[in-house]
This record gives sequence, structure tokens and C-alpha cells, in this order.
Amino acid sequence: MRDVAIIGIGMLKWGELWEKSLRDLCVEASLNCLKDAGTDRIDSITIGSMTSGLFNGQEHLASLIPDYLGRHNLPAIRVESACASGGLAVKTAFIEIASGMSDYVLAIGIEKMTDVGGGDATYALATAADQEYEGFHGITFPGLYAMMAKTHMERYGTTREQLAEVAVKNHKNGSKNPNAQFPFTVTNEQVRNSVKIADPLTLLDCSPITDGAAAVLLAPADEAKRINKHPLITISGIGHATDRIALSQRKDILKLEAVEMACQGALKMAGKTISEIDFAEVHDCFTIAEIMVMEEMGLVNRGEGGKAVLDGYTSLEGRFPVNPSGGLKSKGHPVGATGVAQIYEIVDQLRGTAGERQVKNARTGLAQNMGGSGGSCVTHIMEVK
Amino acid sequence: MRDVAIIGIGMLKWGELWEKSLRDLCVEASLNCLKDAGTDRIDSITIGSMTSGLFNGQEHLASLIPDYLGRHNLPAIRVESACASGGLAVKTAFIEIASGMSDYVLAIGIEKMTDVGGGDATYALATAADQEYEGFHGITFPGLYAMMAKTHMERYGTTREQLAEVAVKNHKNGSKNPNAQFPFTVTNEQVRNSVKIADPLTLLDCSPITDGAAAVLLAPADEAKRINKHPLITISGIGHATDRIALSQRKDILKLEAVEMACQGALKMAGKTISEIDFAEVHDCFTIAEIMVMEEMGLVNRGEGGKAVLDGYTSLEGRFPVNPSGGLKSKGHPVGATGVAQIYEIVDQLRGTAGERQVKNARTGLAQNMGGSGGSCVTHIMEVK
Repeated sequence: MRDVAIIGIGMLKWGELWEKSLRDLCVEASLNCLKDAGTDRIDSITIGSMTSGLFNGQEHLASLIPDYLGRHNLPAIRVESACASGGLAVKTAFIEIASGMSDYVLAIGIEKMTDVGGGDATYALATAADQEYEGFHGITFPGLYAMMAKTHMERYGTTREQLAEVAVKNHKNGSKNPNAQFPFTVTNEQVRNSVKIADPLTLLDCSPITDGAAAVLLAPADEAKRINKHPLITISGIGHATDRIALSQRKDILKLEAVEMACQGALKMAGKTISEIDFAEVHDCFTIAEIMVMEEMGLVNRGEGGKAVLDGYTSLEGRFPVNPSGGLKSKGHPVGATGVAQIYEIVDQLRGTAGERQVKNARTGLAQNMGGSGGSCVTHIMEVK
Repeated sequence: MRDVAIIGIGMLKWGELWEKSLRDLCVEASLNCLKDAGTDRIDSITIGSMTSGLFNGQEHLASLIPDYLGRHNLPAIRVESACASGGLAVKTAFIEIASGMSDYVLAIGIEKMTDVGGGDATYALATAADQEYEGFHGITFPGLYAMMAKTHMERYGTTREQLAEVAVKNHKNGSKNPNAQFPFTVTNEQVRNSVKIADPLTLLDCSPITDGAAAVLLAPADEAKRINKHPLITISGIGHATDRIALSQRKDILKLEAVEMACQGALKMAGKTISEIDFAEVHDCFTIAEIMVMEEMGLVNRGEGGKAVLDGYTSLEGRFPVNPSGGLKSKGHPVGATGVAQIYEIVDQLRGTAGERQVKNARTGLAQNMGGSGGSCVTHIMEVK
């Protein structure tokens, strides 16, 4: 397999973007990415989107997006694994280059979520759960994660304050991110006192509904050295795994097997241990998710994630910064775009161009992107050479 | 890149399968495939589905399907390019093996279309068109293909009888296929006199709404030689391209650029010309589509497709058999499954096990799978070694 580098990254300010359509968002992120890369060569396109069918009545993005990028005729593919769709778009691009099938592959993540009413968005998102055994009975994602949070609190003594501190930290980081949907800070008290969504989770424990896109351009590492003006950043490890889709079918609702396996797989491929990683972007769709993912990846002992957050272990200045971008919580969570935006952030940090939210001595970063209640997970490790 | 072989194929009888759910269909096709392969080793899974979100309220098949196959924890990905989703599932599996990332990859195609009302199915399918410039204004796929048919008749003198003969031929082939949804023969007169859908197309010019799945197991060719009891069948060429998604944006609505490019790409990779191919499965979603695809691939001169069908050139006993399986027309068209089922048919023919519908001296076959009104196309060439 050939070594693969990330030679360009593109984002835009996320939010409730009524004036921009799905295709506009993809084109804007992609053009920003090509400008950043300093090349407009694309051989192939991968697109991560969870459900543009339900959100926008538009499937076949593999035809639509190259068309509106002015690149019809290029091969293109849309990939999906719920909220892990973006990460899979990057993995698919990586394999296409590693195999020798293509050289320059543009990976785009997209979701335009605010054109449907609130109820419909919740339904669309719930299609990431087991429709017959979960969705049909009325469970939604806040409900699923609330059950995990309750169990975590009972088993490990995790407190409401610890959960809320994930949001406090991520909003603090996000307040330094010009692309974040909600770039404001919140206090621990504000999080706890915000409106209840599914006990114990309140509104500010939940990531928002967002319109957004992100894009990264991948190329063989040899080619990157030749043409790219940026420091050489390679994808040195990828892990990808799945789990039982329904929470009720797992032996333990606090065990995220796919997260553990994807992390171990990426570390093995990169030839590293978790202690050799400098920082991470992780899938904080709800505050409890960030805590569980930290534990599953071995950043902290099981049950100690909440305490570590409150102690500042994962703050921007902490020993292991988590979600310097602001995470899904503050940056926003356009589901199919999230995994690509995580990789955007890792590259921005590894280049040392993340401005006020720059992680010190960032040489190796990890992006962990999860689908559903952990039914799928894809993890990338990137290094600056 | 490593050589890749197809070591197992699985189908089931397609139709209006009220007693089988989406997950049941995937599991049945997959188990049939593993039984045929004589191994139950799977390293990774690719799933082609156009819009299980709109048809079944179920996304995240990449988690659901491994789970119900008893293979949770395996990496899995769902890919989509409208009706070309199945072909892309096979292409994605091919690349994963060619790159060295995985060895045994199961490619599944699935669509469960009859659980929604007729109107909703038409809406779901129309999301493969440009929602803003086509769907919003009320156009559906029968309407788009009817415009192509009208133009073809006016420009080349293609007749209503010639169009109908595509259905006659494919139903004749399908009557010999135990897995076909509509395994009965029809006469040219019956096709022409069936209820009008979009002038000049009648009901029997259109492929049906279908529940179905198909699966193929891919492995490195070296491995196939070692463990597989079947003749060695390799994928020697893959072509994949896109076109403007909206018919109105193309210079000529009779030009299917993606079809031509995908065919030429597959031939180039296989080191062959079209005259060295023995037979093909092509995307006859409507009778006019088969005629246009034949012309685009260079099987006949432009404008002569209709005449060639009427002359028997593409019949089972003809010089170049097209759609020996019965095609989408008679076998059925569960959109995401179609591309995988085409490849099932090619392999069955190359093995010489296609029974009553066996193509004589089948050594090299081509599968052409198209999305929307030709907005995307993926073409595979397979050879028996």
C-alpha cells in the first residue's frame, strides 16, 4: 500500500444556513480545500452523508456533487455509516489511493439538516438506530445516550457536574474557532440548568442540529512532497469496526466495542500506543459520549473519564487535549460532515495554524468518529513528518 | 494492485416479499453466497442500497447488516449512487482487496421497496434525479426516460415495436430464471397495449418495484485458487464515471457520457475491446435504456439499437446476448441490489451453471449498472481463467 498524505483542507462557518443549499455547502468547502491545497487536480470524489434523502429529498450525491463542482465525469461515491459517514469518506479515499486506483481524491462530508422541521430531524437521525427494535418503540438518540449516562453515574459515581464540564470545555475551545456554530462559552451551572431533554441530559449536553460541510484532499505522500506547500501530514493508521446496532442487544450498555476496536486497529496500523498520541478529536454527540470514548480508547481508566474532564486533563492546556475544535458540541454536528471536519482540525493543529486554539507540540493526532449509539466507529491517526 | 476473484454468489427469488424484512433479505442472500463459496470467512462488508432511509426508515445498514449476519465488529460500509449502488458495492470491495486492506470482502446489494405505498416509492426513486431542478417540478423517472425515448424515435426512427421487443426478449430470458420476479413471457403486442405510463412508455416498458438482495464474495485471486471449488473468475476491468445529474443540463439528452466512459474505462483496464466481450448484463430500467446503453457501449452503431434487438442480435441465441438473466425488466429492480445481481448473473454464466438460460461459450462478460437518468455508471468486466 502506498503512503497517503492530506494536502488540502476546507471548511466554512457552520450553523443554520438558510441561504445555502446542500450543493452550495459542498462546493464552498471543496473550493476552500482546493485553494488550501494549491492544486485543482481531482481524480475521484468520496462523499460522506448520513441521510440527504430524508433531510433534503436528494440521494445520488455521487452524481450531483461532482456536477456542481464542475467535475462531472469524475468517478464519485457516497458512503454512509450514520454519523460516522464523514470518517468513512476519508477512509474510502485513503484506500483508493493506497490501492493505486487513483492519485488525488477529494473527500467531502455534508449534511444540511435545518430545512426540515424539528420533529422530522429527530426522525431522520433515529434511522441510525435499529428501526424495528428501537425506533419503532419511540426511542431517540438523546434517550439512548441518557440511558448510558444514567448507568455510568450509577456504576462509577460520575456526577452531573462532570458531564456538564465536557460542554464547558468544548464551548471554551469552540469560542476560539471561527467556523463553530456556537462559538460562545457556557458555565457548568448553565449547562446543568438548561432545559431537560432526556434525564440526566439537558439541552447543553446535546450537540446541535447543523448545516455544514467540510472537505479534505488526499494524495500519495510522494506526490504531496513534490507539490504541496504545507508540512507533510500522513494518515498512518485507520481502524474501523462495528457493534450490535441496538443498545439492548449488547452485553453491557457501557461497553463501546466498536470504539475500542477501531482505536486499537488504528494504533496497530500506525505502530503506536495511545500514550504516543498528542491530542484527539472525539465524537461528543452528547457529553456522556466524550467520557465513554475517552475510557474506551484507554486515555483514562474506566469510570474515571468524568473526573479527568473536571480536573482539566483534556482541556486545551491539559495533558491530553480533547476536541480543541470545540467538538460536535460547540462547532456543530452536521452528521455526515463531522468526521471530515475532525480530520480538518487534526491537520490544522499538526500544521500549527490553529490560532488561539493551537495545541502545543502537536505532532500526532487522532480523530474518532462514531455512528449511532456506537454501532460503528472509524478512527484515523495522522502525523506530521 | 492484487488480482481479485469472485469466489461466491448468492441470490434469492425476488418479488413482493411481504414476509421478509430488509435484514432478512440481506442475511438470506449472504448465507446463500457463503454456502456457494464454501467458506464463511469475511474480513469486511460493503453494502449497496439506494435509499433504505426513505423506503424503510432505516439508515446505518453498515451496523445493522453485520449485526444480523452474526458478524458485528467487522468493518462495514454502505455505499450509494442511486441505482448504481450495487455495482459500487462490488467496486468498493474490489479496491479494498486490491489495496491489501482486506482479503475476504462480502458485497451485498439490497432494496426493500414494497413496504411503502406506490406514491412514496415513486418519490423515493425520484430523489436520484436533481431534486431542485427536476424533482421539485414534478418529473419522475418514467417521464425522464420517456423524453429520451421520444427523442430517439424522432432522431433515429426507432419504432414502438423495437422498444417493446426489449421487454419481449428480457421476459423470455427471465422466464428461465428461477429467481426472477416476473418469470413469464410477453408478446410485443401485449407490451405495446399495456397501460400507458409516460408516452411512449407503457407499463411493460418499465422495470418493476421489487424487494430483493444479492451478494458476492470477493477474495485475492491467489486465495481463490487455493480454496475455491469453482472455476477461477476474476474482475479484470472496472470503469466508473458520472455525468450532469439533470437531463436538461446535458448537451444532448441521447448522450450517456457516464455509460460510455465507464465502459471504455473497464475495457482499458481489462486490455480488451468491446468485440472481445461475449455477453452483457445492462441496466434496462426502461426498454429505451437498454437500446441507448447498447449504442453507447459500441455494441451497435448509434441509432441502430432498436433494429438490432428486433433482429435478434441480443437474444440468448444471438451474436451478443444482452440480459440473459431477464434484466431489470423481468428479474425485478430492487435498486440497490441490481448491480450485485448483474454480477451474480455474469459469474453464473461464466461458470456454465446458468441452466436453461446459459449463454454458449461465455468466457468474458460485462455488467453495466447505471444511476438515475445516467448521472452515474459503473461497469465491471469478468473473465473465467
